[in-house]
Amino acid sequence: MPANTDLTEAQVKEFFTTLSNWGKWGPNDQLGALNYITPEKRARAAALVREGRAISMSMPLATQPGLDNPTPVMHLMMQTGAPGEASMVPVPYSADYFAIAPHGLANTHLDALCHVFNQGKMYNGYPSSDVTAQGARNGAIDALKDGIVSRGVLIDVPRVKGRAWLEPGEAISPADLEAAEKAGGFQVEEGDVLFVRTGRHALEKAKGPRNSFQEGMAGLGAACLPWLHARKVAALGSDGASDVLPSGYEKIMLPIHAVTIVAMGIHLLDNCALDTLGEACAARSRWTFLLVVAPLVLVKGTASPVNPLAVF
Amino acid sequence: MPANTDLTEAQVKEFFTTLSNWGKWGPNDQLGALNYITPEKRARAAALVREGRAISMSMPLATQPGLDNPTPVMHLMMQTGAPGEASMVPVPYSADYFAIAPHGLANTHLDALCHVFNQGKMYNGYPSSDVTAQGARNGAIDALKDGIVSRGVLIDVPRVKGRAWLEPGEAISPADLEAAEKAGGFQVEEGDVLFVRTGRHALEKAKGPRNSFQEGMAGLGAACLPWLHARKVAALGSDGASDVLPSGYEKIMLPIHAVTIVAMGIHLLDNCALDTLGEACAARSRWTFLLVVAPLVLVKGTASPVNPLAVF
Amino acid sequence: MPANTDLTEAQVKEFFTTLSNWGKWGPNDQLGALNYITPEKRARAAALVREGRAISMSMPLATQPGLDNPTPVMHLMMQTGAPGEASMVPVPYSADYFAIAPHGLANTHLDALCHVFNQGKMYNGYPSSDVTAQGARNGAIDALKDGIVSRGVLIDVPRVKGRAWLEPGEAISPADLEAAEKAGGFQVEEGDVLFVRTGRHALEKAKGPRNSFQEGMAGLGAACLPWLHARKVAALGSDGASDVLPSGYEKIMLPIHAVTIVAMGIHLLDNCALDTLGEACAARSRWTFLLVVAPLVLVKGTASPVNPLAVF
Amino acid sequence: MPANTDLTEAQVKEFFTTLSNWGKWGPNDQLGALNYITPEKRARAAALVREGRAISMSMPLATQPGLDNPTPVMHLMMQTGAPGEASMVPVPYSADYFAIAPHGLANTHLDALCHVFNQGKMYNGYPSSDVTAQGARNGAIDALKDGIVSRGVLIDVPRVKGRAWLEPGEAISPADLEAAEKAGGFQVEEGDVLFVRTGRHALEKAKGPRNSFQEGMAGLGAACLPWLHARKVAALGSDGASDVLPSGYEKIMLPIHAVTIVAMGIHLLDNCALDTLGEACAARSRWTFLLVVAPLVLVKGTASPVNPLAVF
Repeated sequence: MPANTDLTEAQVKEFFTTLSNWGKWGPNDQLGALNYITPEKRARAAALVREGRAISMSMPLATQPGLDNPTPVMHLMMQTGAPGEASMVPVPYSADYFAIAPHGLANTHLDALCHVFNQGKMYNGYPSSDVTAQGARNGAIDALKDGIVSRGVLIDVPRVKGRAWLEPGEAISPADLEAAEKAGGFQVEEGDVLFVRTGRHALEKAKGPRNSFQEGMAGLGAACLPWLHARKVAALGSDGASDVLPSGYEKIMLPIHAVTIVAMGIHLLDNCALDTLGEACAARSRWTFLLVVAPLVLVKGTASPVNPLAVF
Repeated sequence: MPANTDLTEAQVKEFFTTLSNWGKWGPNDQLGALNYITPEKRARAAALVREGRAISMSMPLATQPGLDNPTPVMHLMMQTGAPGEASMVPVPYSADYFAIAPHGLANTHLDALCHVFNQGKMYNGYPSSDVTAQGARNGAIDALKDGIVSRGVLIDVPRVKGRAWLEPGEAISPADLEAAEKAGGFQVEEGDVLFVRTGRHALEKAKGPRNSFQEGMAGLGAACLPWLHARKVAALGSDGASDVLPSGYEKIMLPIHAVTIVAMGIHLLDNCALDTLGEACAARSRWTFLLVVAPLVLVKGTASPVNPLAVF
Repeated sequence: MPANTDLTEAQVKEFFTTLSNWGKWGPNDQLGALNYITPEKRARAAALVREGRAISMSMPLATQPGLDNPTPVMHLMMQTGAPGEASMVPVPYSADYFAIAPHGLANTHLDALCHVFNQGKMYNGYPSSDVTAQGARNGAIDALKDGIVSRGVLIDVPRVKGRAWLEPGEAISPADLEAAEKAGGFQVEEGDVLFVRTGRHALEKAKGPRNSFQEGMAGLGAACLPWLHARKVAALGSDGASDVLPSGYEKIMLPIHAVTIVAMGIHLLDNCALDTLGEACAARSRWTFLLVVAPLVLVKGTASPVNPLAVF
Repeated sequence: MPANTDLTEAQVKEFFTTLSNWGKWGPNDQLGALNYITPEKRARAAALVREGRAISMSMPLATQPGLDNPTPVMHLMMQTGAPGEASMVPVPYSADYFAIAPHGLANTHLDALCHVFNQGKMYNGYPSSDVTAQGARNGAIDALKDGIVSRGVLIDVPRVKGRAWLEPGEAISPADLEAAEKAGGFQVEEGDVLFVRTGRHALEKAKGPRNSFQEGMAGLGAACLPWLHARKVAALGSDGASDVLPSGYEKIMLPIHAVTIVAMGIHLLDNCALDTLGEACAARSRWTFLLVVAPLVLVKGTASPVNPLAVF
């Protein structure tokens, strides 16, 4: 069954209004749903740490071209320390350089609120013209310089369903999310950073690389949007694009991206590495943890590559 | 008085042997002194969080050329979302691109253990030839993909001395470090990540940009090396290069870099933003905190730009 | 005497109208004054070649940061051919990568007609909004894919004046240009590509690098604009920016750039290497030659780094 | 029939000795077979120009990823001239930036002599270790700063055969080259720059993009090597890689690349656009022309993107 057959495109379009957080945190707000993370929330999240183990949720920076990686990260050496090389200081050292286009389906990255527009506007009503060839005057990634520190929650959909991965194009429903809550004995709460695993990397490991825009990708159906709003999720991550691809809609190609970022002010964490985390959570029967995301302070940037850490 | 007059260059050279941690964590070790950070240490560090406030220790990525920034970060837009732009998916969005040479004196970054060599070898005895035009086979930054989570400690030298900043070329001594401990009521312990503030950014704010390699920079004197070794510091950061510049030595231009990275396996965090953190610590009379550093997973990389977070 | 005291800013402003070539070559023209170069002109230019000697007019790509080079060319190796390197094909080879921002005062480059605007319009009346974050829909450098082949003419102003270089801020007048014609026994004619030497590189060689925007630079005074128009010059190059800096005007900071590119449709060749060419011309008492410029075919680009060749 | 069945790999290997030009132009030579181009040759080439028409042999810089383009050219805008943008000078202008890895099968480029090695050596016996992470000390592209100016010759193999293109994997033989000479009434002579058209771009236009390393590509068979040597060709270009792919050999994967560059010192021009040139030559029944190649002066570079021009 194709994705999103439970909601018409017109119904999704209404979410831009009915699920809007514009103005909720003031006319100049830059943080959106991250405002749900209070100091108390952070302190309680830190208190989840007992074991002292940290787990990365980042894929390696994608230096190899691929179907989902049309603009690979360029990683090049400025010097290796070999004799005779020119350098700023005459001591033997190595130094490198890299160039990255963080968006897309290859690199683990945090989308800024300026990343998506709807009808000429971004989150909180800022005009899309605030983004010029020199970056974003509003909704930029450097608003998050103090990072995201909160409770992280993993919903591992294929694991709950007893499968290795969800199929490309398979949509996750609110019922799936709640089944995971029930199975795991937790509730997604205000200020949580929710990670939803689809098994994308397990699938790619087994079946080879994919062109996900063309061949489809598992992800959240648009029906999850009211659920995310009701739960007051602070940020949302997944091992794919959060969105199911294709969405089945004509114009709103990525309803999760569009409604969470533009209307709800929810920052997305795309292409996270969730397989190791899933194993770790299952082994502990524990699906919540201290989550720390520390984006680079790229002034006026639309995203940052990140290495989100789960600490148990 | 010039820096490092208390130790001859020959004496510093001996530190490569006397302070060496080579082999201590096995012949294949990639983590160096980060091995001092045990799960228990991480759990105790997390328990320091009471208030739930996070503070960035990152300068903005340095996109403007400057005396200390010969290769500025290039930050460019791939699309702004304006009508008619080509894009991977036909929805209005913005996306950017940046290119960075993380080392140097401009960007907050974490040095990998492959960054510095001594007599043809890097930490743990790996040959410098392990670093080729395609990156580092050993000592690379991706060994730290699970991040650095530990107790962070700030030693704010100018504050303890009642000054706004240390002068360029002024060397910090072990006595200075211990004076700060005494004044602050803490002890640097095994597995701590130590940040030493020199007031560099306050100085530059007051007096304008500098060419620190030519004009000097405050930092740790070589005499601190045995102290760092004895305290079993896991990693070391500062608002400068950790090293005092110039060192006063002829060949060992950056003794802190050379001995900590090569001999002791200590990762360095250069050019951290410590002014806000210093204010925050002083306001709380509290100099220890949960420290989280989440480097990008750049396979074979010699460094990562980072945004270290202190959580109170 | 400061530059451009012979013309008020208001008089220069009138040149946008009085010297305009808009519409002259049709409403869709992309070539501007290059239309003056007819096939016959090219053939006659080729007939200037007798000796069979070619001379580069390009500076090396500027990989070192400097006062006039805030964004140095990044030149990095993808592989050196050393054993064990990854590569597309398993044979020993080297390959590199470079990144360049061609404009500015450091690299020899050819400005496209989309490079400068006046009152919201570029050459031929195209709106400046034709240039977006994805490049230029009109006036782009790829319109010149068949290159510039014509007669080149060198006017070596300091040589005619018996000096090694012109002083920073010294303006070249139409009388200077005509004195060079008279001394050299040539006339600048329709379709010529005119190169004007100021001795900038000789000056920098003798006195060190400069910040030309701040400290000034020799170049053509605005009074040369009607002369260039009357002579029907096809393109204009110099060893600086063509413009004298500072221009002395408040708003029209670079009158040569603004009026030649926007009004007259003249492509500029900035930062050419003219010292060797000047020697060669003087040695031959010959100031005209076959000129070939072969810009890279950068679709929608605003410039190309180039290596203009003079063939004698 | 697979390519190169007329010569064993051992026989090709002998060409490194029997066709070697090492030492021919002195132990410090950097130009290789370009030494065949004398001033007289250049002058005679210029005399070929009668019509005054120039034709580009460059494909557009390949900004789109593709099967033959794993590392696309990044072309990005630094400013568009829109109001409020930061810039070096406060006048409305646009400026861009591009990053390119010139080698590979996507961009028209000129290989430097340091690009290929055989048994640890490059042309003239320079060690491959002359190429480090900071570029090539010998055989670099900047040796060609005065460009290549000579007679260009087009051999349009499919046209002579009455076909639209050669099939992938189809090898061109010396007999094919001589058939073209006979049909066209010309002879390839000492110092000529030879372009061999295979119809690759016509094929791709008709059948879509290809992964030429995997699926094969038409090109010169190894048997052409003695012919190129005997004719004293100065440089060699084609619309592909010059080499037929696959070569059929186990170790010498690209015999034309290896033997021409390493042994003979012949610079190669890869991925030229030859369809328009082929039409132009056929229309004139004229296969020779003035050829000008003006590589960028990239010090220590292994290649330059170029826009070779044929002038009739």
